[in-house]
Amino acid sequence: MERFTYDIKTKIYFGEGEIAHLGEAVSACGKKALVVYGGGSIKRNGIYDDAMKYLREAGIAVVELSGVEPNPRIETVRKGVDLCRREAVEVVVAIGGGSTIDAAKVIAGSVSYEGDAWDIVLDASKVVSVLPIVSVLTLAATGSEMDTFAVISDMQKNEKWGTGHPDFRPVASILDPTYTYSVSAYQTAAGTADMMSHIMENYFSNESGYMQDRVAEALLQTCVEYGVKAVKEPCNYDARANLMWTGSWAINDLLCLGKPVAWSVHPMEHELSAFYDITHGVGLAILTPHWMEYVLDDTTVEKFAQLARNVWHVSPHETDLYQVARAGIKCTADYFKAMGIPMTLREVGIDETHFDEMAKKASEGMEGAYRELSPEDVKAIYQAAL
Amino acid sequence: MERFTYDIKTKIYFGEGEIAHLGEAVSACGKKALVVYGGGSIKRNGIYDDAMKYLREAGIAVVELSGVEPNPRIETVRKGVDLCRREAVEVVVAIGGGSTIDAAKVIAGSVSYEGDAWDIVLDASKVVSVLPIVSVLTLAATGSEMDTFAVISDMQKNEKWGTGHPDFRPVASILDPTYTYSVSAYQTAAGTADMMSHIMENYFSNESGYMQDRVAEALLQTCVEYGVKAVKEPCNYDARANLMWTGSWAINDLLCLGKPVAWSVHPMEHELSAFYDITHGVGLAILTPHWMEYVLDDTTVEKFAQLARNVWHVSPHETDLYQVARAGIKCTADYFKAMGIPMTLREVGIDETHFDEMAKKASEGMEGAYRELSPEDVKAIYQAAL
Repeated sequence: MERFTYDIKTKIYFGEGEIAHLGEAVSACGKKALVVYGGGSIKRNGIYDDAMKYLREAGIAVVELSGVEPNPRIETVRKGVDLCRREAVEVVVAIGGGSTIDAAKVIAGSVSYEGDAWDIVLDASKVVSVLPIVSVLTLAATGSEMDTFAVISDMQKNEKWGTGHPDFRPVASILDPTYTYSVSAYQTAAGTADMMSHIMENYFSNESGYMQDRVAEALLQTCVEYGVKAVKEPCNYDARANLMWTGSWAINDLLCLGKPVAWSVHPMEHELSAFYDITHGVGLAILTPHWMEYVLDDTTVEKFAQLARNVWHVSPHETDLYQVARAGIKCTADYFKAMGIPMTLREVGIDETHFDEMAKKASEGMEGAYRELSPEDVKAIYQAAL
Repeated sequence: MERFTYDIKTKIYFGEGEIAHLGEAVSACGKKALVVYGGGSIKRNGIYDDAMKYLREAGIAVVELSGVEPNPRIETVRKGVDLCRREAVEVVVAIGGGSTIDAAKVIAGSVSYEGDAWDIVLDASKVVSVLPIVSVLTLAATGSEMDTFAVISDMQKNEKWGTGHPDFRPVASILDPTYTYSVSAYQTAAGTADMMSHIMENYFSNESGYMQDRVAEALLQTCVEYGVKAVKEPCNYDARANLMWTGSWAINDLLCLGKPVAWSVHPMEHELSAFYDITHGVGLAILTPHWMEYVLDDTTVEKFAQLARNVWHVSPHETDLYQVARAGIKCTADYFKAMGIPMTLREVGIDETHFDEMAKKASEGMEGAYRELSPEDVKAIYQAAL
């Protein structure tokens, strides 16, 4: 196991009605908040009203930034930064899914930086200081509520980049599983695929961490148990709760600390959504089984067989490792399909037009990955996924 | 899943040589430290010298309290409290295993309390404030380095009680697996049994948490993988590292938050070590399989079968649940035996003399447990374990 520092300070209020703690959580950080949210669904389902009530009761002054996009744009981040400066905001409250929280993070980290917020996306070492962030989660997927990462797009440049800073980790997050009851079947499936991908990106690394890998399998099994269930029974509390809590642990550090990890499928998918603005989790689900097939060889077959056995419970007594591994890959693809995800690029409106350009960019982001892939490799995977 | 608040602020420096961060970690809390340790083995193996060097370099003034016992005594805690008051100590540094850290916790929590420290052991709600605690771990077992609990004994009264307070959780802990190379085979086995027991106490609860239970199985598998290995190869870094990190997660909250948990085997064992001062983990190992057999019935058989299948990989296709469950219980006992633990009470010098008294006390501490046991039940388990 490699040396590491574990430092996850996010306080989690988990359960129905836990938004009642929002005032207390925000008060601990400041008296003036920028409240960031998306397209306004939180106004229809009452979360906005609840949040405002508890902030008001705690004497918090509120400035609002609405309209954060599903793949959050740098223009929106810039607006938020301006607001924070103009209004002397002390704390940023994100109410929404990963996109909203990601936008809040880069806003919080750019206020005290003199240059443009896009610089922070490209190079987080330029961060001077970060306003404290509190999140209210409404979608189980990215894990942004408990991690240090943010992904921001500049659609004019077809660029989508991840950035990260220790202080981007929210100081507190409110996880109320009932807030995800209204998430559509499609977004529920995509969110589950996203967290499964996070877990697998950590799982498939060149050096195993025994404890970390067993925990990864535990979290994957939880996704498998509850993903389809949540798609079919949107108001199943237990399903929503298990997915929500698993989403946070999929990416908050426990799975990767102590072993060398560099991601593979996310860099390939980021190009898809940068060029076509598709749902991130859907892109991941489409690519994952093809990536698995592509990198399956004598050096990786054992790990894929392990996934098959420990997560998918594929024939424990079968000794042909390739057969076991392939059965696991098929289970993975079948599960995404069972959740209703379209499993080809064509179905989400992507053709070969930008394959070369996307493959080149994706390949650049794969240093140290389980298998480093050349642009040609990535293109072959895109093609297999067509 | 039940509502919960997750709030684990302990910063972990994990890996060989990470004691280099001790000065930085302590400085963040104060300039004058009480350094608490046990019988002096840290002086023989160089940990004491390293710690003092880094504290000195950081300009920390040091007061020392040595001689904390394996089952730490209230008299030692009182000495520490006096020292802290007299010397105006600002931070407590524990160097040792769970006993030393537990003593440090109750010292840190009693300094600002006017009455006797034993009051804090009996009722942590009397805590006024807690000095910050930093730990340097030298034994993988109790998880005290990342949890809120402490167990203190008053041997004159044959009493051993657990207490807990949110601020007892160390603000930082240094986990260097090489520090456990010199731990004897016996103590390594006992420590592993202790953490396995922590995991199982959380696992066997009246309502399951799917995600929590899968993670519990992941951690149990890690103990099984590395326990015997560490006993046989004391300087196997990977074994020591996996055990050390698993010990922290066995009891730091992740496994119990969201589900109702009350312990069973620990209350029974605490009476053994309160009356006979035996090694805690050994007592747990002796009692656990007998407790399992005793509570195995139609309402618990499924959970025991789950343990058998998911941790011990017992016959996945066998359909007789009792057969599977009993095979799992046997695997548990056999594993403790394989680590070299004496598996009867007689072997550790315990006879029936105090069974009635111990059983009565143990039974009182079992409210809400997986199976609440009467004094007669507990006595029957003690007798089976003779």
